[in-house]
Amino acid sequence: VADSEKARRPGGRSARVRAAVHKAVMDLVAERGYGNFAVGDVATRAGVADSSIYRRWGSLEELITDVAITWLTRTSPIPDTGDLDSDLRAYAAGVARDISGPDGLAVLRLVIALSNAGASGEQARDRFLAERGRQLQGMLDRAEDRGEHPPEALDVLDHILAPLYVRVLFGYGPVTPDHVDSLVDRLVHRPGRKSAARR
Amino acid sequence: VADSEKARRPGGRSARVRAAVHKAVMDLVAERGYGNFAVGDVATRAGVADSSIYRRWGSLEELITDVAITWLTRTSPIPDTGDLDSDLRAYAAGVARDISGPDGLAVLRLVIALSNAGASGEQARDRFLAERGRQLQGMLDRAEDRGEHPPEALDVLDHILAPLYVRVLFGYGPVTPDHVDSLVDRLVHRPGRKSAARR
Repeated sequence: VADSEKARRPGGRSARVRAAVHKAVMDLVAERGYGNFAVGDVATRAGVADSSIYRRWGSLEELITDVAITWLTRTSPIPDTGDLDSDLRAYAAGVARDISGPDGLAVLRLVIALSNAGASGEQARDRFLAERGRQLQGMLDRAEDRGEHPPEALDVLDHILAPLYVRVLFGYGPVTPDHVDSLVDRLVHRPGRKSAARR
Repeated sequence: VADSEKARRPGGRSARVRAAVHKAVMDLVAERGYGNFAVGDVATRAGVADSSIYRRWGSLEELITDVAITWLTRTSPIPDTGDLDSDLRAYAAGVARDISGPDGLAVLRLVIALSNAGASGEQARDRFLAERGRQLQGMLDRAEDRGEHPPEALDVLDHILAPLYVRVLFGYGPVTPDHVDSLVDRLVHRPGRKSAARR
C-alpha cells in the first residue's frame, strides 16, 4: 500500500524531505553558524535518517551548498529587465543590499567555511560559484543576444561584486547607492566621467 | 644598579619585551589561528606578566593589530619607486604575492576575526586599516607632488585590492601577472585597450 501510494504521488515525500532538511540547515546556520553542526544534527531536526541525507546529498558541504544556492536564487535572483544597464544596476544593488542586510556576509562566511573544509568543501564551494556564475553569464548572454555589448563575467565579479564585499568586510568605505552606480558606470561607460574630466 | 642600567640604555628592556611579545603572538597565530588564544597565553610564552601587556597594548585585539601592521609594513612595504605606474604595479604584485603565498589570506582572516570580536575588535580593525590606508595615501600623494595624476585611494582598494582578495577567496579566477597588470591598466589608462578595441 505504501509503495502504491508513493507511485501515485511521485516526488511528494521526496519534496517534503527536501523542505524539512533545508529548513533544518537554515535554522542550524542561524543558531550556530557554519561549521558548528554535523549531518546528525540536521537529520535529528528534520526527522529523517542520517543515511537519507548522505544518499541524497553525499556530504554536509554539498547539502549546505544546495541550501545556499536555493536560498540565494530565491532571495536574490539574477536580474532580467531586458536591458544590460538596468540588469547591471539591479545586480549591483542586490549585492549591496544582501551584504548590508541582517544576513550580511552570509555568503562570504559560507565560502570561507567551505574553503576551510578540505577537498569536499572546496568542491562544494566551486559548485556553488559555478552555479551562481552560470546565472550571471546567462544575464550577459541575453544582453549579447539583444545586440548589446556586455562586459566579461569575470569583470563584473572583479569590479562590482569584489569592491562591495571588501568594502563591507574591511569597512574602508561606504556602500551607498552613489557608489554602486559609480561601479556600474565605470564598468560600462569607460572612461568614467570623473577620470575623463581630470585628464 | 638595575635602575641605572635601564637609564643608560633607554628603550632597551622595552624593546626586548616588545620583540618577545610580538614573536609570541606570531607563533600563536601560526599554531592556533586568530581567536584561539588569550593575553595569558601570550604573556606565558613571552615570559612577561599579563599586566605588562594590558598596560602597553590595552587589549588582545590592539596587540594583534600592532603585530600585524608591523609584520605587513616590513614584509610588504608600500612601494616608492619614484613613478606612479611602477608604484601601482609593485603594489598590486605585492598584494597578489601576499595572498597567494603560504600565509595566504592572513590579513583577511585577521580582519574577519577582529570584525567578530566586538567593539574593541572593530576599533582595532579600523586602526589597522587606517594605518595601511595612510601608507597607501602617502604613495599617491608622492605621485601628486611629482605632477602625476594618481587615482583616489578608495579606487585603488576597490579595483586592485578587492578583486585580488575576492578571486583568491572565491577561487573564481586566476591571479596571474597578466591579471594584475590588467587591473592597473584599467585603473590608470582608462579606457582599457581590450574594451576600446571591442567598442
